[in-house]
Amino acid sequence: MERDRAPVGRLFGVGVGPGDPDLLTLKAVAILSRVPVVAYPAPVGGESSARAIASPYLGSSAHRGSSIIEIAIEIPMRPGEIPAEPYERGADRIASELDQGRDVAILCEGDPLFYGTFIYLLERLEDWYPCTIVPGVTSLTACAAAASLALVRRNEILMVLPGTLNSDALTTRLYNSGALAILKVGRHVQRLKSVLESGGRLEGAMLVEHATRAQERIRPLSDCGEQTVPYFSMILVPAPDLEEGRS
Amino acid sequence: MERDRAPVGRLFGVGVGPGDPDLLTLKAVAILSRVPVVAYPAPVGGESSARAIASPYLGSSAHRGSSIIEIAIEIPMRPGEIPAEPYERGADRIASELDQGRDVAILCEGDPLFYGTFIYLLERLEDWYPCTIVPGVTSLTACAAAASLALVRRNEILMVLPGTLNSDALTTRLYNSGALAILKVGRHVQRLKSVLESGGRLEGAMLVEHATRAQERIRPLSDCGEQTVPYFSMILVPAPDLEEGRS
Repeated sequence: MERDRAPVGRLFGVGVGPGDPDLLTLKAVAILSRVPVVAYPAPVGGESSARAIASPYLGSSAHRGSSIIEIAIEIPMRPGEIPAEPYERGADRIASELDQGRDVAILCEGDPLFYGTFIYLLERLEDWYPCTIVPGVTSLTACAAAASLALVRRNEILMVLPGTLNSDALTTRLYNSGALAILKVGRHVQRLKSVLESGGRLEGAMLVEHATRAQERIRPLSDCGEQTVPYFSMILVPAPDLEEGRS
Repeated sequence: MERDRAPVGRLFGVGVGPGDPDLLTLKAVAILSRVPVVAYPAPVGGESSARAIASPYLGSSAHRGSSIIEIAIEIPMRPGEIPAEPYERGADRIASELDQGRDVAILCEGDPLFYGTFIYLLERLEDWYPCTIVPGVTSLTACAAAASLALVRRNEILMVLPGTLNSDALTTRLYNSGALAILKVGRHVQRLKSVLESGGRLEGAMLVEHATRAQERIRPLSDCGEQTVPYFSMILVPAPDLEEGRS
């Protein structure tokens, strides 16, 4: 690979927001409309959610008549260790385009640096190529907006927790923690409900599924009886001070 | 006030992002270009930062020839209790426009529900008027993008802390807390540096000022010798696991 030869392309990490294509930023749209190459994570054999969100804008301005190059980085969706191989191979394919002077945008659901897979590509490429990261609207604030729930105000603390943590790890975080946002709820929903109930934090907890999308659904967590909900669901719990009327 | 008469206008809470006008969403721009009334918080006698960010888009499409109505809600900027009176008066002025059937957009720096003053207007109006909240890019991910710093990945926890908390309250949160984002750094910068150093969390901590704006400045917190930095600066501290190379 000839990574030390100029001129190389620029790498963009572009947040495409939580799902509604109208929640892309103007900056994201401007970049996606003109880059000749886009890359995105995708489940093996499945559709990339980031690509679906960004699809109205891809190549819409610069490359009339010629189609853009797409690099799907297939990530096996299973718990445990991060598999290095798909990211290595994806980074190599992206580097090959950059080496030929083509700009590459990596599409990132939500924000590139907030629980995304972009990080694993960035760390393999940032020492070699100029890079611009475009922040996006996260599911965190999109869920709060959907539920019309004040996330944090003034001196309140917000703790963001992956629902995949074990119950002991979660329980120790329920105290002194202010507002809570629990991501990646999925098949953990009933366990998370029990943990919150035991910790006295079930009251006011809201479950948000598919925020900003057509299937958006919002309800109190206490109303949820299902054993599983979509993986990208979120539980939002207001700060205890608010509930007690202090602030 | 005739709040029970139809048809009333719709209230929009619109996140305008962290500072760069290109970081508004398409949805925010579409709303701001057509609403006849905008409201925004402003320091007493000073310029509204949210209005400055959104100014390129206000009234750009719908009201050719007629100017939009602007409601500046002047908030005294001092620590302590939230003053109710400016919000009461602001909510009354907004209600008066909504009662006349005009849509009103409240401009919110960053995201409406993430440490914003929008919450105090929302709670005074949401029972009376239809309301849509448009999430925005927060300073949290904008600062991470500016610093090219992975905020959180996989099973990591993120704790968001206002720098205005006292040192004891901060210190007890340094442990078991994963990545840290400390907002509202301002005149607390040296105290926060000491707290982080005592807790073994200074290494890797980055100080970000004016993210996404022309004056953007990024450096290790350990390099900062000033007694004060801009109020909206942020300190980002990576999760300890990352620093140790585990994940």
